Amino acid sequence: MAETQPDANGQTVDGASEYFRNTQRPKQLSKHEALAKEFIQYHVETNPDRRIAIVTSGGTTVPLEKQTVRFIDNFSAGTRGATSAEYFLQADYAVIFLHRQFSLLPYSRHYSHSTNCFLDFMDEADDGGVIVADEFQAKMRRVLQQYQHAKKNRLLLLLPFTTVTEYLYALRSLATLTKPLGPRTLFYLAAAVSDFFIPADRLEEHKIQSRETADGKGSGKKLIIDLDPVPKFLKTLVQQWAPKGSMVVSFKLETDPELLVSKAEESLSRYQHDCVIGNLLTTRKWEVVFITRDRGEKWIRVPKARRSKSFSGVENMVGLADHKKEPEQIDLEGGTVTEGMEIETLIIPELKRMHDDVIARQERH
Amino acid sequence: MAETQPDANGQTVDGASEYFRNTQRPKQLSKHEALAKEFIQYHVETNPDRRIAIVTSGGTTVPLEKQTVRFIDNFSAGTRGATSAEYFLQADYAVIFLHRQFSLLPYSRHYSHSTNCFLDFMDEADDGGVIVADEFQAKMRRVLQQYQHAKKNRLLLLLPFTTVTEYLYALRSLATLTKPLGPRTLFYLAAAVSDFFIPADRLEEHKIQSRETADGKGSGKKLIIDLDPVPKFLKTLVQQWAPKGSMVVSFKLETDPELLVSKAEESLSRYQHDCVIGNLLTTRKWEVVFITRDRGEKWIRVPKARRSKSFSGVENMVGLADHKKEPEQIDLEGGTVTEGMEIETLIIPELKRMHDDVIARQERH
Repeated sequence: MAETQPDANGQTVDGASEYFRNTQRPKQLSKHEALAKEFIQYHVETNPDRRIAIVTSGGTTVPLEKQTVRFIDNFSAGTRGATSAEYFLQADYAVIFLHRQFSLLPYSRHYSHSTNCFLDFMDEADDGGVIVADEFQAKMRRVLQQYQHAKKNRLLLLLPFTTVTEYLYALRSLATLTKPLGPRTLFYLAAAVSDFFIPADRLEEHKIQSRETADGKGSGKKLIIDLDPVPKFLKTLVQQWAPKGSMVVSFKLETDPELLVSKAEESLSRYQHDCVIGNLLTTRKWEVVFITRDRGEKWIRVPKARRSKSFSGVENMVGLADHKKEPEQIDLEGGTVTEGMEIETLIIPELKRMHDDVIARQERH
Repeated sequence: MAETQPDANGQTVDGASEYFRNTQRPKQLSKHEALAKEFIQYHVETNPDRRIAIVTSGGTTVPLEKQTVRFIDNFSAGTRGATSAEYFLQADYAVIFLHRQFSLLPYSRHYSHSTNCFLDFMDEADDGGVIVADEFQAKMRRVLQQYQHAKKNRLLLLLPFTTVTEYLYALRSLATLTKPLGPRTLFYLAAAVSDFFIPADRLEEHKIQSRETADGKGSGKKLIIDLDPVPKFLKTLVQQWAPKGSMVVSFKLETDPELLVSKAEESLSRYQHDCVIGNLLTTRKWEVVFITRDRGEKWIRVPKARRSKSFSGVENMVGLADHKKEPEQIDLEGGTVTEGMEIETLIIPELKRMHDDVIARQERH
């Protein structure tokens, strides 16, 4: 195997073990493990049929300095993960939401990235109290009810990460902690994880000074960043960390349509997990392709008429006219709004059916 | 000058001009220019004494691919910029807030990065209406009133950027457009701007494939990123773009205390602007140093007793106890809360006094 190489004692270690041995355990890991343990135990004890989805979301960072001022990041606002988490909750899963700090969260996402945040939805009443303006009441009530339902029933655990190291440590811990659930665990790996990192022993302590990297020509000070590959932890997750018989779904984001399906197929055959969901940067909100061993290639698309218009990204406070727009339209009740169906309404039920089969197969054995 | 070199026709161009010539004009620039023009004109016409602060905020990105999946980013949530913008508004400035898309915004920042966003502040009333819970009413009323005041009086224009190119184009346009204001313009450059970029002609079209960069050893596929220096646009801003006699304040963020003052002094003498505010990554919320020609080095500190406790960063929905916490405590009214004074309450009045002097000096001439 490409990731296997002998260590200093002549023993064979895989790339993932070596990575963990050489990178420091994140400070907050123990705290997060305790929260996850409590969460999982609660569900194991209160409902023997409860499934848990580990949803990962947002991009991981690769610091370029120890005291980090600069870092390499992967593009992701966390929309896929935050949206999917809501539909997993609707499908009666409990959800551990392992997300990039400050990326979008389930429920609050409906207001977070709007033009001027939620203050535009508020008004001051005659008695001086702050209230939600009438026109936004209906939607906010739906979101709030679902949020409070998840909270009251302890169905959602939010755990943040920033760096790729924090992400990998947390994922390994979560996989180990879900052992008591066995096949009722579903890994939904929507986070955009760095392929490359800088080993700790090569990291600069302080902010890289731009003047120290003269290229000899005088005027041009160049910066050269030299990165190592992150080990293919997905293989280790499937083979070692994850509970036996659990379901693992990964994502493959590409920009070149020519490469999408072959890259996704390659990933499935390499890591031997259950499903790769392929998507293109430009069309990811309307179409994805499921790659599985049993059924090959299956495209899932939002019908043209139900695709929401893209968000302009231009924010201003000059004219009032632009402010009262809702952010991206959503479909919390599975089909009652006129503008925009979220593709996750199709993805998650499809995965749930696959998960039914995975669990049934395990129970027959 | 280091940035000056002959171009292909033998003519001398500075680094900034060359940068603009070689990078494509961002699509949204014209739209943003139109908004800024309207905003500036409104204030010039309605109040001849109105000052405008151009506040830049958040980190710029450097895409590693044309269809961007990966990018280099500079650490910044936009706290300094968003907080400062509020105090400039309080000091009767109009503010153009040139900010990284999705970074913190004035006013909404008080709720954006909280544990579970603003939904934790909401309740459903007996009649089914969504209301703000009693304990959060007082603060939200203050924030909402200030927000609505800024909006009603057109005092705040929000313009987003993502890449360093979008940032530089927008800054150049804004400097040109504020000409009618002359010395009443103040540039407050709090954005964390990349020092390095990849020229367009060297950018990959698609997501960099990790398997294409084999180092020959088989298992390790390395990635080497080769960046050019971003031209020192601050010099060009001061010498060419900014209105004559306007005030320019820049920031210098360092991690090494030994370097802070000398780096800030070097920056001031190099670019010949009005003030460099130096700050360290770890103490930037409690202390900054002003470096000016007239008064040398001046430290500004929040008294120990008034420093807010740091935010833990751990988010969870397991226990209810953790949810009802306010996010970072703030001091909207200049001194009435018990926990945490924002250092921007000290920075902005100090700058306003300096700006008074700058304007008075101009008027004497």
